[in-house]
Amino acid sequence: MGNLNKIQVSVIGAGTCSDDIASLAYEVGRHLALNDCILLCGGLGGVMEHAAKGARDNNGQTIGILPGFDISDANPYIDIAVPTGISHARNIVVVRSGMACIAVEGSYGTLSEIAIALELKKPVIGLNTWDISPDIIKAANPEDAVKKAIEQIKNRF
Amino acid sequence: MGNLNKIQVSVIGAGTCSDDIASLAYEVGRHLALNDCILLCGGLGGVMEHAAKGARDNNGQTIGILPGFDISDANPYIDIAVPTGISHARNIVVVRSGMACIAVEGSYGTLSEIAIALELKKPVIGLNTWDISPDIIKAANPEDAVKKAIEQIKNRF
Amino acid sequence: MGNLNKIQVSVIGAGTCSDDIASLAYEVGRHLALNDCILLCGGLGGVMEHAAKGARDNNGQTIGILPGFDISDANPYIDIAVPTGISHARNIVVVRSGMACIAVEGSYGTLSEIAIALELKKPVIGLNTWDISPDIIKAANPEDAVKKAIEQIKNRF
Amino acid sequence: MGNLNKIQVSVIGAGTCSDDIASLAYEVGRHLALNDCILLCGGLGGVMEHAAKGARDNNGQTIGILPGFDISDANPYIDIAVPTGISHARNIVVVRSGMACIAVEGSYGTLSEIAIALELKKPVIGLNTWDISPDIIKAANPEDAVKKAIEQIKNRF
Repeated sequence: MGNLNKIQVSVIGAGTCSDDIASLAYEVGRHLALNDCILLCGGLGGVMEHAAKGARDNNGQTIGILPGFDISDANPYIDIAVPTGISHARNIVVVRSGMACIAVEGSYGTLSEIAIALELKKPVIGLNTWDISPDIIKAANPEDAVKKAIEQIKNRF
Repeated sequence: MGNLNKIQVSVIGAGTCSDDIASLAYEVGRHLALNDCILLCGGLGGVMEHAAKGARDNNGQTIGILPGFDISDANPYIDIAVPTGISHARNIVVVRSGMACIAVEGSYGTLSEIAIALELKKPVIGLNTWDISPDIIKAANPEDAVKKAIEQIKNRF
Repeated sequence: MGNLNKIQVSVIGAGTCSDDIASLAYEVGRHLALNDCILLCGGLGGVMEHAAKGARDNNGQTIGILPGFDISDANPYIDIAVPTGISHARNIVVVRSGMACIAVEGSYGTLSEIAIALELKKPVIGLNTWDISPDIIKAANPEDAVKKAIEQIKNRF
Repeated sequence: MGNLNKIQVSVIGAGTCSDDIASLAYEVGRHLALNDCILLCGGLGGVMEHAAKGARDNNGQTIGILPGFDISDANPYIDIAVPTGISHARNIVVVRSGMACIAVEGSYGTLSEIAIALELKKPVIGLNTWDISPDIIKAANPEDAVKKAIEQIKNRF
């Protein structure tokens, strides 16, 4: 963890999602906050927004690493916005900035993030997501996902 | 194709590979050159190097979009080097710069490129590669891969 | 300011500096914290480190947007690290992430950040820095720099 | 020059320019082509377009490293387009990809490129451009600029 005081976890997932997936994302955010972890995400809607809301509602802190140019692109539950202006390349920054990544469902964009995380040998915890490798650590539910992310981080850092 | 005179095709694949995969990559490069296409790739070893050699040996032109800082990182079959200095984020530049992508086998890095290409609705032709979506157009062999890439480009641009 | 609750200000300057410049940077960080602003910077040494220390010593929050790959590259006064892995291209992310930039002295790297900020029509407050344009708002001292940054932001957002 | 067969020179300058500056840019492109150098630039209008035209009209080859997403953003004199999708961060890729940079006039965007080039200790040849450092090598005219760029490259690579 270097000099940092708090664990940073990235939540990755699509910009639009069903109510069921929104609930999963919210619970991931909630459990990250309850465990005093900082939540990083892509800062937009869908999984990113619901996870951020779950963290915010529980006094957690949220960072949005945005693809575009404007701080105002961030969803309403982001505390600190980092508008990268580098479009899809910001996916890689989201992955790098988490000590572990929790993937919640997701489409091709999320798959690209999972693949980069595995390439970088970063722990990836999966919830209802792409089943493309045994290197993805499957979680039974959001609480389990957060527990496994923290365990992985404590083992590695 | 905008104002460009020639078709640009990106070849994606791992930085190390078996002899069999090297042959496939070489043949992809050869057929791109025979069809007067410009080959773009990540500029390093393995699939990138063998594809570039196949193009060069047949009077094709090759562009290497490098992750690092130095022009001298390019393999010996690259004509023009673009050292981006943006590390894995250059994968996305490789994908964007091809009017289509041909994926030859590949590990997680290649998977991230395939996923980004699909996210961007760019044609992806697969040779012995990740079988993660029906959106990947499977090719029977290198000649077929190049033929399908050109067909896709002519239909879309 | 979009949905954000706090003002974000980027402090830019060189990775090594004299004691006098370190004091200026520290005071900029201190006044940002006293005004409840979040400090963003490049996360490394010199001006970045002293500004972050000034903020931290006064209960401010600090974000380090790093050029490299590792969270552990951050100086000891960074609360949240964003390792971009995009090298000098991260300068642009630092500039974009501030609602205003305060430049403290600086060499060519800082000049590139000032130039990008002016190109993006972002307010740039200068303290002992490059005198290359009337568009740079000169500050008499760190307190004045922070005051002018906040004024600019309130006028523009 | 690593494995490359040809010298790569980046021409940097604004996206709009006067007729006089357009002539200077055209002549820079022409002399690069006459010296068998590959011209790289940002691929858009103004200095970039006139330099590319000067090279193309003299059988030179031109590479456009674009800020946006589309190959079709390239001006009509670009042979190979690299749409980076990373916005202003592509300025740094343009600088890195030249073994030397020739700056023709230019506003803040060009200044940011000059500053990055100097930071990277890359030779910068200046024609009617920002006079911010003795490290910029002044050229008397386009022919002289190309001559000085080639000399610098031969001394360093």
